[in-house]
Amino acid sequence: MNQIDTPPRLYEWAGRKSAQPVDPALEGLVRDIIGAVADKWTMLILETLEAHGTMRFTELGHKVGEISQKMLTKTLRRMEADGLVTRKVHPVVPPHVDYTLTEMGRGLGAAFCSVWIWAETHHDEIEQARTAFAKRQGVAVVRT
Amino acid sequence: MNQIDTPPRLYEWAGRKSAQPVDPALEGLVRDIIGAVADKWTMLILETLEAHGTMRFTELGHKVGEISQKMLTKTLRRMEADGLVTRKVHPVVPPHVDYTLTEMGRGLGAAFCSVWIWAETHHDEIEQARTAFAKRQGVAVVRT
Repeated sequence: MNQIDTPPRLYEWAGRKSAQPVDPALEGLVRDIIGAVADKWTMLILETLEAHGTMRFTELGHKVGEISQKMLTKTLRRMEADGLVTRKVHPVVPPHVDYTLTEMGRGLGAAFCSVWIWAETHHDEIEQARTAFAKRQGVAVVRT
Repeated sequence: MNQIDTPPRLYEWAGRKSAQPVDPALEGLVRDIIGAVADKWTMLILETLEAHGTMRFTELGHKVGEISQKMLTKTLRRMEADGLVTRKVHPVVPPHVDYTLTEMGRGLGAAFCSVWIWAETHHDEIEQARTAFAKRQGVAVVRT
């Protein structure tokens, strides 16, 4: 079997180890979804809304931390389009807008859970890897 | 308890539902790691290397698909620094370079597994949400 010519096999970890070929249209769709949701701001917003429930825009930005208004707006708009959050405009004076996770959004948050655990479990090892990498780069500069 | 003034509570899904406060230094570190790894290219590279084993740069780019050389170089370099892949230079003529997942990289790939499953499970629902959102935007434009 020529490994080079086989198409990318997605979901290898997802229990799809069988020889059954993945539907290319479905593969494209899933890659597109991953492209939309695999993003640190999405992860942080999911986590914040899960922890605090329905939140107003400013409060959400404050809790997520270090996110620009522009990026928060952009990310929430995409999350709303993808059905991960609902946006509710309250017709009060002055009007206010709040955001709530949908069931699907909560499901994605739960799916990201093991990535949070991984980061927490391996932070020491990652710090060590970074230090070792910086040292190797130093050595490489001397060698050149 | 004033919800507004509590710090962001990370890992709510990670079984940390206790009242024990999260160490702010650790929280910052974990957020930094999430910022580095929560990225679609990282996810696609992890998946591709898991499926195909050790790969050369060009072959890896080809399998990941639609990634620029610049983005592939940048992402692999960060993954190497974080200890997710090892980069091996073979002293042959012409020299070649290949990349292999480390155990830690394989662990992160496995952690992302449920996100792939989520995307595959919900693609119909996401498509519907996108269509509905586009329609609502249309209505919103008429209303304004």
